[in-house]
Amino acid sequence: MSEILVVGSLAYDSIKTPSGTADRALGGSANYFSLAASLFAKVRVVGVVGEDYDQKDYDLLQTRGVDLAGLSKVPGKTFHWEGSYEGDMNEAKTLKTELNVFEHFNPQLPEHFKDSSFVFLANIAPELQLQVLEQVKSPKFVGMDSMNLWLTIKKDKVIEVLKKVDLVLINEGEAKMLTGANNAISAAPMITEMGPSAVVIKRGEYGFAMYTKADGYFILPAMPIATVVDPTGAGDTFAGGFFGYLAAQKEVPTTTHMKQACIMGSMMASHTIQDFSVKSLAKVTLGDLDKRLNEYKKVITI
Amino acid sequence: MSEILVVGSLAYDSIKTPSGTADRALGGSANYFSLAASLFAKVRVVGVVGEDYDQKDYDLLQTRGVDLAGLSKVPGKTFHWEGSYEGDMNEAKTLKTELNVFEHFNPQLPEHFKDSSFVFLANIAPELQLQVLEQVKSPKFVGMDSMNLWLTIKKDKVIEVLKKVDLVLINEGEAKMLTGANNAISAAPMITEMGPSAVVIKRGEYGFAMYTKADGYFILPAMPIATVVDPTGAGDTFAGGFFGYLAAQKEVPTTTHMKQACIMGSMMASHTIQDFSVKSLAKVTLGDLDKRLNEYKKVITI
Repeated sequence: MSEILVVGSLAYDSIKTPSGTADRALGGSANYFSLAASLFAKVRVVGVVGEDYDQKDYDLLQTRGVDLAGLSKVPGKTFHWEGSYEGDMNEAKTLKTELNVFEHFNPQLPEHFKDSSFVFLANIAPELQLQVLEQVKSPKFVGMDSMNLWLTIKKDKVIEVLKKVDLVLINEGEAKMLTGANNAISAAPMITEMGPSAVVIKRGEYGFAMYTKADGYFILPAMPIATVVDPTGAGDTFAGGFFGYLAAQKEVPTTTHMKQACIMGSMMASHTIQDFSVKSLAKVTLGDLDKRLNEYKKVITI
Repeated sequence: MSEILVVGSLAYDSIKTPSGTADRALGGSANYFSLAASLFAKVRVVGVVGEDYDQKDYDLLQTRGVDLAGLSKVPGKTFHWEGSYEGDMNEAKTLKTELNVFEHFNPQLPEHFKDSSFVFLANIAPELQLQVLEQVKSPKFVGMDSMNLWLTIKKDKVIEVLKKVDLVLINEGEAKMLTGANNAISAAPMITEMGPSAVVIKRGEYGFAMYTKADGYFILPAMPIATVVDPTGAGDTFAGGFFGYLAAQKEVPTTTHMKQACIMGSMMASHTIQDFSVKSLAKVTLGDLDKRLNEYKKVITI
């Protein structure tokens, strides 16, 4: 098994959805990613939290064998995001973003993190993504995410990161924003032209569209979930399930592995959205995933 | 083989999309439906056109063996719709609707239409849908479509039609409108509670979600098409492919037939959107569909 290094946010989120509210609940891309990926592989986290970060939130990752040697605690408050979802719940409305300790984040990898085989650069400032990637000696497979904020204020830098990764996992709206395309199908090959050999476009309730230079499109719908309680973290969970699955294989990732990884990410994410914060995700077992996968296969098969 | 009776509009559409414009091009649900369905089965059209309806547009359906005995030509102008598509092209913006001869449409079925086995009530006023359905003696399988206009001004009447059909084919936005649900997954079982045993929710570029009381969900993405020239008629084409496929089977439709019918409808619709009006659809052959189906299978299979 190979180790996965992830750099991303550890946060407290205040969320409002039609199902209710969560106040300062555990969130952040690195948390969702690590909880999902650690079901399959060894995960190493690079990130920063403030003095208010709760011991039980460290413990949650540590009981899953996640290596927190790259997680620094510094004076100040933990990153805080406040958002709400309405209507079709496909997109969050950001009400407040308090970077707090993230503002002066200067990621330094512990020595034993530098040999990581898999690297996921979750959605943080592109300079930080680069800074982390440069410290990893010879990664086998690197993935990245990004978001509208960086595509607006630091697009050139995002494109610089794109050149150095194997895979981009990105929301549909952001894929269009990055390329100027008006649909995911035309955006995907434009993104692979920018560097990565594969792109996975996350389509929320509609599932995902993967495109690889070598083998073209692989597109499937999401698991049907009637009541979406809180979509926060679904994309990071997808990425965690995806990387976890890949890292658990013996071989260098092939397109077939990536297709299976997409389905695993999708099954994982379908759990995350069924409760607020990481509540549902933290309880998911391999048995649950297997059961859901069987249900899913019925949905997509004649 | 069984006959399919369709009642719907025959129209001239003026359309603007990012790819260009079409002025008074052939359109209308009955035209798209008939062109698609007639590749597989015998189609009978009930509708009305004005004095301006072009002989070549009659000929187009007649060369496909479509029975036009139920199509009346009356004084006045043919139904005219004007719309434009922007951005993701998932929804048309209606600029003008001129009902013209449709305003006083009083559908009377020719005697030999009354034994039709399959009936599709395309998107027209629900009273007209009922009036047609009441004239068919003992249909084996009845489907319907509807739209936001009728759901706004004649929702009770739409619900009355719903009680008399086996299947509803409806757009995602309209499925939400009909039920008050905020996603297709929760809307689908609510629609089957209203009468029909099956519902197919059309999701545009995201494909379709079918739900049957007996067997639950069947969900697949659309064929990936990078350049959507004109999405007009995609839903009616889907319905035509769906009904054509069902009518060509020897047995009474099962869930398995309906799943295959969804895929056929989807393959048909993927052609329609590649050119303005019925230009692409009118040229599609069974060979083209077979080729596309093979490409599609690669996209959705590991």
